[in-house]
Amino acid sequence: MSVGTLVLLRHGESVWNAENLFTGWVDVPLSEKGVAEAKRGGELLKAAGVLPEVLHTSLLRRAISTANLALDAADRHWIPVKRDWRLNERHYGALQGKNKKQTLDEFGEEQFMLWRRSYDTPPPPIEPGTEFSQDADARYADLGPDLPLTECLLDVVKRMLPYWESAIVPDLRAGKTVLVTAHGNSLRALVKHLDGISDDDIAGLNIPTGIPLRYDLDEALQPITRGGLYLDPDAAADAIKAVANQGR
Amino acid sequence: MSVGTLVLLRHGESVWNAENLFTGWVDVPLSEKGVAEAKRGGELLKAAGVLPEVLHTSLLRRAISTANLALDAADRHWIPVKRDWRLNERHYGALQGKNKKQTLDEFGEEQFMLWRRSYDTPPPPIEPGTEFSQDADARYADLGPDLPLTECLLDVVKRMLPYWESAIVPDLRAGKTVLVTAHGNSLRALVKHLDGISDDDIAGLNIPTGIPLRYDLDEALQPITRGGLYLDPDAAADAIKAVANQGR
Repeated sequence: MSVGTLVLLRHGESVWNAENLFTGWVDVPLSEKGVAEAKRGGELLKAAGVLPEVLHTSLLRRAISTANLALDAADRHWIPVKRDWRLNERHYGALQGKNKKQTLDEFGEEQFMLWRRSYDTPPPPIEPGTEFSQDADARYADLGPDLPLTECLLDVVKRMLPYWESAIVPDLRAGKTVLVTAHGNSLRALVKHLDGISDDDIAGLNIPTGIPLRYDLDEALQPITRGGLYLDPDAAADAIKAVANQGR
Repeated sequence: MSVGTLVLLRHGESVWNAENLFTGWVDVPLSEKGVAEAKRGGELLKAAGVLPEVLHTSLLRRAISTANLALDAADRHWIPVKRDWRLNERHYGALQGKNKKQTLDEFGEEQFMLWRRSYDTPPPPIEPGTEFSQDADARYADLGPDLPLTECLLDVVKRMLPYWESAIVPDLRAGKTVLVTAHGNSLRALVKHLDGISDDDIAGLNIPTGIPLRYDLDEALQPITRGGLYLDPDAAADAIKAVANQGR
Protein backbone atom coordinates (compact mmCIF):
# COMPACT_ATOMS: atom_id res chain seq x y z
CA MET A 1 0.00 0.00 0.00
CA SER A 2 1.32 3.47 -0.85
CA VAL A 3 2.26 5.94 1.85
CA GLY A 4 -0.59 8.16 3.04
CA THR A 5 -0.87 11.92 3.02
CA LEU A 6 0.42 14.08 5.87
CA VAL A 7 -1.37 17.33 6.65
CA LEU A 8 0.08 19.78 9.18
CA LEU A 9 -2.06 22.47 10.78
CA ARG A 10 -0.66 25.09 13.13
CA HIS A 11 -3.24 26.37 15.63
CA GLY A 12 -4.75 29.79 15.12
CA GLU A 13 -4.22 32.86 17.29
CA SER A 14 -4.46 32.28 21.05
CA VAL A 15 -5.43 34.94 23.56
CA TRP A 16 -1.75 35.17 24.54
CA ASN A 17 -0.56 35.49 20.94
CA ALA A 18 -2.97 38.44 20.77
CA GLU A 19 -1.41 39.91 23.94
CA ASN A 20 2.16 39.22 22.68
CA LEU A 21 3.09 36.95 25.62
CA PHE A 22 5.43 33.94 25.52
CA THR A 23 3.10 30.96 25.89
CA GLY A 24 4.97 27.66 25.58
CA TRP A 25 3.20 25.06 27.70
CA VAL A 26 0.77 27.49 29.36
CA ASP A 27 -2.65 26.20 28.29
CA VAL A 28 -4.40 29.31 26.97
CA PRO A 29 -7.49 29.19 24.73
CA LEU A 30 -7.86 30.38 21.15
CA SER A 31 -8.90 33.98 20.59
CA GLU A 32 -11.99 34.70 18.48
CA LYS A 33 -9.64 35.21 15.54
CA GLY A 34 -8.05 31.82 16.30
CA VAL A 35 -11.47 30.14 16.32
CA ALA A 36 -12.22 31.65 12.89
CA GLU A 37 -8.80 30.50 11.60
CA ALA A 38 -9.49 26.94 12.76
CA LYS A 39 -12.87 26.82 11.04
CA ARG A 40 -11.36 28.21 7.83
CA GLY A 41 -8.62 25.57 8.03
CA GLY A 42 -11.33 22.91 8.07
CA GLU A 43 -13.14 24.54 5.15
CA LEU A 44 -9.88 24.48 3.16
CA LEU A 45 -9.51 20.76 3.88
CA LYS A 46 -13.06 20.08 2.75
CA ALA A 47 -12.80 22.24 -0.39
CA ALA A 48 -9.54 20.50 -1.37
CA GLY A 49 -11.01 17.05 -0.71
CA VAL A 50 -8.20 16.37 1.78
CA LEU A 51 -10.13 14.28 4.29
CA PRO A 52 -8.18 13.28 7.41
CA GLU A 53 -8.64 9.69 8.58
CA VAL A 54 -6.78 10.07 11.87
CA LEU A 55 -5.79 13.04 14.02
CA HIS A 56 -2.70 13.61 16.14
CA THR A 57 -2.64 16.62 18.50
CA SER A 58 -0.65 17.98 21.40
CA LEU A 59 -2.11 18.12 24.92
CA LEU A 60 -2.68 21.87 24.68
CA ARG A 61 -6.11 23.43 24.33
CA ARG A 62 -5.24 25.71 21.43
CA ALA A 63 -4.22 22.76 19.23
CA ILE A 64 -7.06 20.52 20.46
CA SER A 65 -9.69 23.22 19.84
CA THR A 66 -8.19 23.96 16.43
CA ALA A 67 -8.51 20.29 15.53
CA ASN A 68 -12.06 20.02 16.89
CA LEU A 69 -13.22 23.11 15.00
CA ALA A 70 -11.40 22.28 11.75
CA LEU A 71 -12.60 18.67 11.69
CA ASP A 72 -16.16 19.71 12.46
CA ALA A 73 -16.04 22.18 9.54
CA ALA A 74 -14.61 19.42 7.30
CA ASP A 75 -17.27 16.92 8.48
CA ARG A 76 -14.51 14.67 9.86
CA HIS A 77 -15.19 15.20 13.60
CA TRP A 78 -15.66 11.43 14.03
CA ILE A 79 -12.15 10.23 13.09
CA PRO A 80 -9.86 8.59 15.68
CA VAL A 81 -7.76 10.93 17.82
CA LYS A 82 -4.37 10.48 19.43
CA ARG A 83 -2.89 13.12 21.73
CA ASP A 84 0.64 13.32 23.05
CA TRP A 85 2.78 15.81 24.97
CA ARG A 86 5.54 15.21 22.42
CA LEU A 87 3.58 17.40 19.96
CA ASN A 88 3.39 20.27 22.48
CA GLU A 89 4.81 23.71 21.75
CA ARG A 90 8.41 24.33 22.79
CA HIS A 91 8.61 24.90 26.55
CA TYR A 92 9.63 28.52 26.93
CA GLY A 93 11.14 28.14 30.40
CA ALA A 94 11.22 31.22 32.60
CA LEU A 95 9.94 33.33 29.70
CA GLN A 96 6.46 31.74 29.90
CA GLY A 97 3.92 34.43 30.73
CA LYS A 98 6.31 37.29 29.92
CA ASN A 99 5.58 40.01 27.37
CA LYS A 100 7.69 39.62 24.23
CA LYS A 101 8.23 43.34 23.70
CA GLN A 102 9.23 43.90 27.35
CA THR A 103 11.59 40.92 27.14
CA LEU A 104 13.15 42.38 24.00
CA ASP A 105 13.60 45.78 25.71
CA GLU A 106 14.97 44.21 28.92
CA PHE A 107 17.46 41.78 27.41
CA GLY A 108 18.24 43.36 24.05
CA GLU A 109 17.95 42.17 20.48
CA GLU A 110 20.80 39.66 20.55
CA GLN A 111 19.68 37.71 23.64
CA PHE A 112 16.04 37.93 22.59
CA MET A 113 16.74 36.45 19.15
CA LEU A 114 18.99 33.79 20.69
CA TRP A 115 16.12 32.58 22.89
CA ARG A 116 13.61 32.80 20.06
CA ARG A 117 15.62 31.40 17.18
CA SER A 118 18.79 29.68 18.37
CA TYR A 119 18.68 25.96 17.64
CA ASP A 120 20.40 24.80 20.81
CA THR A 121 20.23 27.58 23.43
CA PRO A 122 17.16 27.28 25.69
CA PRO A 123 15.81 30.15 27.81
CA PRO A 124 16.48 29.94 31.57
CA PRO A 125 14.47 27.10 33.19
CA ILE A 126 11.13 27.84 34.81
CA GLU A 127 10.99 27.50 38.59
CA PRO A 128 8.77 24.58 39.66
CA GLY A 129 5.71 25.59 41.67
CA THR A 130 5.41 29.01 40.06
CA GLU A 131 2.37 30.39 38.26
CA PHE A 132 3.24 29.26 34.74
CA SER A 133 5.07 25.99 35.49
CA GLN A 134 3.55 22.56 34.70
CA ASP A 135 4.94 20.40 37.52
CA ALA A 136 1.51 20.09 39.21
CA ASP A 137 -0.39 19.53 35.96
CA ALA A 138 -2.16 16.14 35.95
CA ARG A 139 -1.70 15.65 32.21
CA TYR A 140 2.08 15.43 32.64
CA ALA A 141 2.05 13.34 35.81
CA ASP A 142 3.48 10.31 34.00
CA LEU A 143 6.49 12.18 32.59
CA GLY A 144 8.47 12.25 35.82
CA PRO A 145 11.99 13.56 35.17
CA ASP A 146 11.20 13.92 31.44
CA LEU A 147 9.04 16.97 32.19
CA PRO A 148 10.92 19.86 30.59
CA LEU A 149 11.61 23.08 32.50
CA THR A 150 12.76 24.81 29.32
CA GLU A 151 13.51 23.77 25.75
CA CYS A 152 15.41 24.89 22.69
CA LEU A 153 14.30 23.70 19.24
CA LEU A 154 16.85 20.88 19.40
CA ASP A 155 15.10 19.60 22.55
CA VAL A 156 11.78 19.69 20.70
CA VAL A 157 13.25 17.71 17.80
CA LYS A 158 14.58 15.10 20.25
CA ARG A 159 11.28 14.56 22.04
CA MET A 160 9.05 14.94 18.98
CA LEU A 161 10.82 12.48 16.65
CA PRO A 162 10.11 9.36 18.77
CA TYR A 163 6.39 10.17 18.48
CA TRP A 164 6.71 10.71 14.73
CA GLU A 165 8.38 7.31 14.34
CA SER A 166 6.21 5.33 16.75
CA ALA A 167 2.75 6.87 16.23
CA ILE A 168 2.48 8.96 13.05
CA VAL A 169 4.62 6.94 10.63
CA PRO A 170 2.60 3.73 11.23
CA ASP A 171 -0.60 5.58 10.29
CA LEU A 172 1.09 6.89 7.12
CA ARG A 173 2.45 3.42 6.29
CA ALA A 174 -1.14 2.16 6.62
CA GLY A 175 -2.03 4.53 3.78
CA LYS A 176 -4.03 6.96 5.88
CA THR A 177 -4.50 10.71 5.47
CA VAL A 178 -3.04 11.96 8.75
CA LEU A 179 -3.77 15.37 10.27
CA VAL A 180 -1.26 16.73 12.80
CA THR A 181 -2.59 19.76 14.65
CA ALA A 182 0.16 21.34 16.69
CA HIS A 183 2.35 24.38 17.28
CA GLY A 184 4.86 26.66 15.61
CA ASN A 185 7.89 24.90 17.03
CA SER A 186 6.73 21.28 17.15
CA LEU A 187 5.74 21.62 13.49
CA ARG A 188 9.05 23.36 12.64
CA ALA A 189 10.82 20.40 14.25
CA LEU A 190 8.82 18.00 12.07
CA VAL A 191 9.32 20.01 8.87
CA LYS A 192 13.07 20.26 9.63
CA HIS A 193 13.17 16.47 9.73
CA LEU A 194 10.99 15.94 6.64
CA ASP A 195 12.72 18.50 4.42
CA GLY A 196 16.23 17.91 5.79
CA ILE A 197 16.68 21.54 6.82
CA SER A 198 20.00 22.37 8.51
CA ASP A 199 20.29 23.52 12.13
CA ASP A 200 21.17 27.00 10.84
CA ASP A 201 18.51 27.30 8.16
CA ILE A 202 15.60 26.25 10.37
CA ALA A 203 15.82 29.66 12.11
CA GLY A 204 14.41 31.27 8.96
CA LEU A 205 11.40 28.95 8.64
CA ASN A 206 7.98 30.20 9.75
CA ILE A 207 4.81 28.13 9.44
CA PRO A 208 1.62 30.19 9.12
CA THR A 209 -1.36 29.53 11.38
CA GLY A 210 -4.62 27.97 10.26
CA ILE A 211 -3.55 26.99 6.73
CA PRO A 212 -3.27 23.23 6.14
CA LEU A 213 0.15 22.22 4.78
CA ARG A 214 0.02 19.04 2.73
CA TYR A 215 2.98 16.68 2.34
CA ASP A 216 2.83 13.80 -0.10
CA LEU A 217 5.58 11.35 0.79
CA ASP A 218 7.41 8.65 -1.14
CA GLU A 219 8.13 5.14 0.13
CA ALA A 220 11.19 6.44 2.01
CA LEU A 221 8.93 9.05 3.68
CA GLN A 222 10.68 11.80 1.74
CA PRO A 223 8.50 14.72 0.59
CA ILE A 224 7.66 14.51 -3.12
CA THR A 225 7.54 18.33 -3.09
CA ARG A 226 10.07 19.83 -0.68
CA GLY A 227 8.32 22.21 1.73
CA GLY A 228 4.94 20.67 1.04
CA LEU A 229 1.94 22.44 -0.48
CA TYR A 230 -0.23 24.93 1.41
CA LEU A 231 -3.92 24.57 0.65
CA ASP A 232 -4.09 28.37 0.34
CA PRO A 233 -0.64 29.38 -1.01
CA ASP A 234 -1.35 33.13 -1.26
CA ALA A 235 -2.60 33.39 2.33
CA ALA A 236 0.37 31.30 3.46
CA ALA A 237 2.86 33.64 1.80
CA ASP A 238 1.24 36.67 3.43
CA ALA A 239 1.10 34.99 6.84
CA ILE A 240 4.75 33.90 6.76
CA LYS A 241 5.77 37.56 6.47
CA ALA A 242 3.54 38.50 9.43
CA VAL A 243 4.93 35.72 11.68
CA ALA A 244 8.48 36.87 10.96
CA ASN A 245 7.60 40.26 12.44
CA GLN A 246 6.19 38.83 15.71
CA GLY A 247 7.48 40.41 18.88
CA ARG A 248 8.31 43.73 17.22
CA MET B 1 -6.83 -1.79 42.05
CA SER B 2 -10.43 -0.83 42.71
CA VAL B 3 -12.90 -0.33 39.89
CA GLY B 4 -12.98 3.20 38.48
CA THR B 5 -15.89 5.61 38.26
CA LEU B 6 -18.30 5.64 35.34
CA VAL B 7 -19.86 8.96 34.28
CA LEU B 8 -22.62 9.05 31.67
CA LEU B 9 -23.50 12.26 29.84
CA ARG B 10 -26.36 12.50 27.36
CA HIS B 11 -25.80 15.16 24.72
CA GLY B 12 -27.70 18.44 24.95
CA GLU B 13 -30.43 19.65 22.61
CA SER B 14 -29.71 19.28 18.89
CA VAL B 15 -31.22 21.45 16.18
CA TRP B 16 -33.54 18.54 15.31
CA ASN B 17 -34.59 18.02 18.93
CA ALA B 18 -35.58 21.68 18.83
CA GLU B 19 -37.57 21.07 15.62
CA ASN B 20 -39.15 17.87 17.05
CA LEU B 21 -37.78 15.60 14.30
CA PHE B 22 -36.71 11.95 14.65
CA THR B 23 -32.91 12.09 14.40
CA GLY B 24 -31.36 8.65 14.96
CA TRP B 25 -28.13 8.44 12.96
CA VAL B 26 -28.63 11.72 11.07
CA ASP B 27 -25.61 13.81 12.12
CA VAL B 28 -27.15 17.11 13.18
CA PRO B 29 -25.31 19.70 15.32
CA LEU B 30 -26.18 20.91 18.80
CA SER B 31 -28.50 23.88 19.09
CA GLU B 32 -27.34 26.94 21.05
CA LYS B 33 -29.21 25.52 24.03
CA GLY B 34 -27.38 22.22 23.54
CA VAL B 35 -24.02 24.00 23.52
CA ALA B 36 -24.91 25.70 26.81
CA GLU B 37 -26.02 22.35 28.29
CA ALA B 38 -22.70 20.75 27.34
CA LYS B 39 -20.67 23.53 28.96
CA ARG B 40 -22.77 23.31 32.09
CA GLY B 41 -22.24 19.54 32.16
CA GLY B 42 -18.50 20.20 32.21
CA GLU B 43 -18.85 22.79 34.95
CA LEU B 44 -20.78 20.26 37.04
CA LEU B 45 -17.96 17.72 36.57
CA LYS B 46 -15.36 20.27 37.63
CA ALA B 47 -17.36 21.52 40.62
CA ALA B 48 -17.89 17.93 41.83
CA GLY B 49 -14.22 17.06 41.33
CA VAL B 50 -15.23 14.24 38.98
CA LEU B 51 -12.35 14.43 36.54
CA PRO B 52 -12.58 12.06 33.56
CA GLU B 53 -9.37 10.27 32.60
CA VAL B 54 -10.65 8.78 29.36
CA LEU B 55 -13.57 9.58 27.07
CA HIS B 56 -15.78 7.26 25.01
CA THR B 57 -18.17 8.82 22.48
CA SER B 58 -20.34 7.82 19.56
CA LEU B 59 -19.49 8.86 15.99
CA LEU B 60 -22.20 11.52 15.97
CA ARG B 61 -21.46 15.23 16.11
CA ARG B 62 -23.92 16.04 18.88
CA ALA B 63 -22.20 13.64 21.30
CA ILE B 64 -18.68 14.55 20.13
CA SER B 65 -19.36 18.30 20.49
CA THR B 66 -20.94 17.73 23.90
CA ALA B 67 -17.80 15.90 25.02
CA ASN B 68 -15.46 18.54 23.57
CA LEU B 69 -17.34 21.40 25.22
CA ALA B 70 -17.83 19.65 28.56
CA LEU B 71 -14.21 18.52 28.82
CA ASP B 72 -12.94 21.96 27.88
CA ALA B 73 -15.11 23.48 30.62
CA ALA B 74 -13.78 20.86 33.08
CA ASP B 75 -10.16 21.48 31.98
CA ARG B 76 -9.91 17.86 30.82
CA HIS B 77 -9.84 18.49 27.05
CA TRP B 78 -6.49 16.64 26.83
CA ILE B 79 -7.60 13.16 27.95
CA PRO B 80 -7.53 10.17 25.56
CA VAL B 81 -10.59 9.71 23.34
CA LYS B 82 -12.16 6.59 21.87
CA ARG B 83 -15.09 6.80 19.46
CA ASP B 84 -17.28 3.96 18.24
CA TRP B 85 -20.48 3.56 16.24
CA ARG B 86 -21.69 1.13 18.93
CA LEU B 87 -22.41 4.14 21.15
CA ASN B 88 -24.53 5.82 18.46
CA GLU B 89 -28.17 6.71 19.01
CA ARG B 90 -30.77 4.10 18.07
CA HIS B 91 -31.22 4.03 14.30
CA TYR B 92 -34.74 5.29 13.74
CA GLY B 93 -35.18 3.65 10.34
CA ALA B 94 -37.67 5.22 7.94
CA LEU B 95 -38.73 7.67 10.66
CA GLN B 96 -35.39 9.54 10.45
CA GLY B 97 -36.05 13.13 9.38
CA LYS B 98 -39.80 12.92 10.08
CA ASN B 99 -41.66 15.24 12.44
CA LYS B 100 -42.68 13.52 15.67
CA LYS B 101 -46.01 15.28 15.99
CA GLN B 102 -46.95 14.56 12.35
CA THR B 103 -45.93 10.92 12.81
CA LEU B 104 -48.12 10.71 15.91
CA ASP B 105 -51.07 12.23 14.02
CA GLU B 106 -50.52 10.01 10.95
CA PHE B 107 -50.03 6.66 12.68
CA GLY B 108 -51.89 7.15 15.95
CA GLU B 109 -50.89 6.90 19.58
CA GLU B 110 -50.50 3.13 19.75
CA GLN B 111 -48.18 2.71 16.74
CA PHE B 112 -46.24 5.88 17.68
CA MET B 113 -45.57 4.64 21.21
CA LEU B 114 -44.68 1.17 19.92
CA TRP B 115 -41.94 2.67 17.72
CA ARG B 116 -40.75 4.98 20.45
CA ARG B 117 -40.87 2.74 23.47
CA SER B 118 -41.30 -0.91 22.48
CA TYR B 119 -38.25 -2.94 23.44
CA ASP B 120 -38.22 -5.22 20.41
CA THR B 121 -40.28 -3.62 17.62
CA PRO B 122 -38.18 -1.46 15.28
CA PRO B 123 -39.66 1.18 12.94
CA PRO B 124 -39.76 0.28 9.22
CA PRO B 125 -36.23 0.15 7.73
CA ILE B 126 -34.82 3.19 5.95
CA GLU B 127 -34.36 2.85 2.19
CA PRO B 128 -30.65 2.90 1.24
CA GLY B 129 -29.61 5.82 -0.92
CA THR B 130 -32.27 8.16 0.46
CA GLU B 131 -31.65 11.54 2.06
CA PHE B 132 -31.35 10.42 5.67
CA SER B 133 -29.75 6.97 5.19
CA GLN B 134 -26.12 6.25 6.14
CA ASP B 135 -25.08 3.70 3.50
CA ALA B 136 -22.79 6.17 1.71
CA ASP B 137 -21.30 7.61 4.95
CA ALA B 138 -17.51 7.06 5.10
CA ARG B 139 -17.50 6.64 8.88
CA TYR B 140 -19.54 3.42 8.58
CA ALA B 141 -17.72 2.02 5.54
CA ASP B 142 -16.17 -0.80 7.59
CA LEU B 143 -19.50 -2.03 8.98
CA GLY B 144 -20.61 -3.82 5.83
CA PRO B 145 -23.76 -5.86 6.51
CA ASP B 146 -23.69 -4.78 10.18
CA LEU B 147 -24.88 -1.30 9.17
CA PRO B 148 -28.37 -1.04 10.65
CA LEU B 149 -31.31 0.16 8.56
CA THR B 150 -33.50 0.43 11.66
CA GLU B 151 -33.20 -0.54 15.31
CA CYS B 152 -35.31 -1.25 18.36
CA LEU B 153 -33.81 -0.82 21.85
CA LEU B 154 -33.00 -4.55 21.96
CA ASP B 155 -30.85 -4.07 18.82
CA VAL B 156 -29.03 -1.20 20.55
CA VAL B 157 -28.38 -3.37 23.62
CA LYS B 158 -26.97 -6.12 21.39
CA ARG B 159 -24.54 -3.88 19.51
CA MET B 160 -23.63 -1.65 22.48
CA LEU B 161 -22.76 -4.39 25.03
CA PRO B 162 -19.75 -5.75 23.06
CA TYR B 163 -18.23 -2.25 23.18
CA TRP B 164 -18.97 -1.96 26.89
CA GLU B 165 -17.22 -5.26 27.56
CA SER B 166 -14.26 -4.82 25.21
CA ALA B 167 -13.50 -1.10 25.52
CA ILE B 168 -15.14 0.54 28.55
CA VAL B 169 -14.83 -2.20 31.16
CA PRO B 170 -11.03 -2.48 30.69
CA ASP B 171 -10.68 1.25 31.41
CA LEU B 172 -12.83 0.84 34.55
CA ARG B 173 -10.85 -2.22 35.63
CA ALA B 174 -7.71 -0.07 35.27
CA GLY B 175 -9.19 2.22 37.93
CA LYS B 176 -9.94 5.13 35.62
CA THR B 177 -12.70 7.71 35.78
CA VAL B 178 -14.48 7.04 32.48
CA LEU B 179 -16.76 9.53 30.72
CA VAL B 180 -19.25 8.12 28.20
CA THR B 181 -20.86 10.85 26.14
CA ALA B 182 -23.68 9.42 24.08
CA HIS B 183 -27.41 9.38 23.35
CA GLY B 184 -30.79 8.79 24.96
CA ASN B 185 -31.09 5.21 23.76
CA SER B 186 -27.47 4.03 23.83
CA LEU B 187 -27.30 5.27 27.43
CA ARG B 188 -30.66 3.65 28.27
CA ALA B 189 -29.23 0.40 26.91
CA LEU B 190 -26.20 0.75 29.17
CA VAL B 191 -28.22 1.72 32.26
CA LYS B 192 -30.59 -1.22 31.60
CA HIS B 193 -27.57 -3.51 31.74
CA LEU B 194 -25.98 -1.85 34.79
CA ASP B 195 -29.13 -1.64 36.89
CA GLY B 196 -30.64 -4.91 35.69
CA ILE B 197 -33.83 -3.22 34.45
CA SER B 198 -36.38 -5.54 32.81
CA ASP B 199 -37.37 -5.33 29.15
CA ASP B 200 -40.75 -3.93 30.23
CA ASP B 201 -39.54 -1.43 32.82
CA ILE B 202 -36.90 0.18 30.57
CA ALA B 203 -39.73 1.88 28.63
CA GLY B 204 -40.31 4.15 31.62
CA LEU B 205 -36.69 5.27 32.00
CA ASN B 206 -35.66 8.69 30.70
CA ILE B 207 -32.14 10.08 31.04
CA PRO B 208 -31.95 13.88 31.12
CA THR B 209 -29.60 15.76 28.79
CA GLY B 210 -26.46 17.56 29.92
CA ILE B 211 -26.40 16.36 33.53
CA PRO B 212 -23.54 13.96 34.36
CA LEU B 213 -24.77 10.69 35.90
CA ARG B 214 -22.19 9.06 38.14
CA TYR B 215 -22.02 5.32 38.76
CA ASP B 216 -19.68 3.92 41.38
CA LEU B 217 -19.27 0.21 40.72
CA ASP B 218 -18.23 -2.73 42.88
CA GLU B 219 -15.76 -5.42 41.84
CA ALA B 220 -18.54 -7.27 39.99
CA LEU B 221 -19.28 -4.03 38.09
CA GLN B 222 -22.60 -3.73 39.91
CA PRO B 223 -23.74 -0.18 40.81
CA ILE B 224 -23.18 0.62 44.50
CA THR B 225 -26.19 2.94 44.23
CA ARG B 226 -28.82 1.62 41.82
CA GLY B 227 -29.65 4.26 39.19
CA GLY B 228 -26.43 6.17 39.88
CA LEU B 229 -26.17 9.71 41.19
CA TYR B 230 -26.87 12.80 39.08
CA LEU B 231 -24.43 15.63 39.74
CA ASP B 232 -27.42 18.01 39.80
CA PRO B 233 -30.30 15.90 41.21
CA ASP B 234 -32.92 18.68 41.19
CA ALA B 235 -32.29 19.61 37.55
CA ALA B 236 -32.30 15.91 36.65
CA ALA B 237 -35.71 15.37 38.27
CA ASP B 238 -37.17 18.35 36.38
CA ALA B 239 -35.62 17.25 33.08
CA ILE B 240 -36.89 13.66 33.37
CA LYS B 241 -40.44 15.01 33.44
CA ALA B 242 -39.80 17.17 30.36
CA VAL B 243 -38.30 14.29 28.32
CA ALA B 244 -41.34 12.12 29.10
CA ASN B 245 -43.53 14.72 27.37
CA GLN B 246 -41.46 14.81 24.13
CA GLY B 247 -43.42 14.48 20.91
CA ARG B 248 -46.63 15.82 22.45
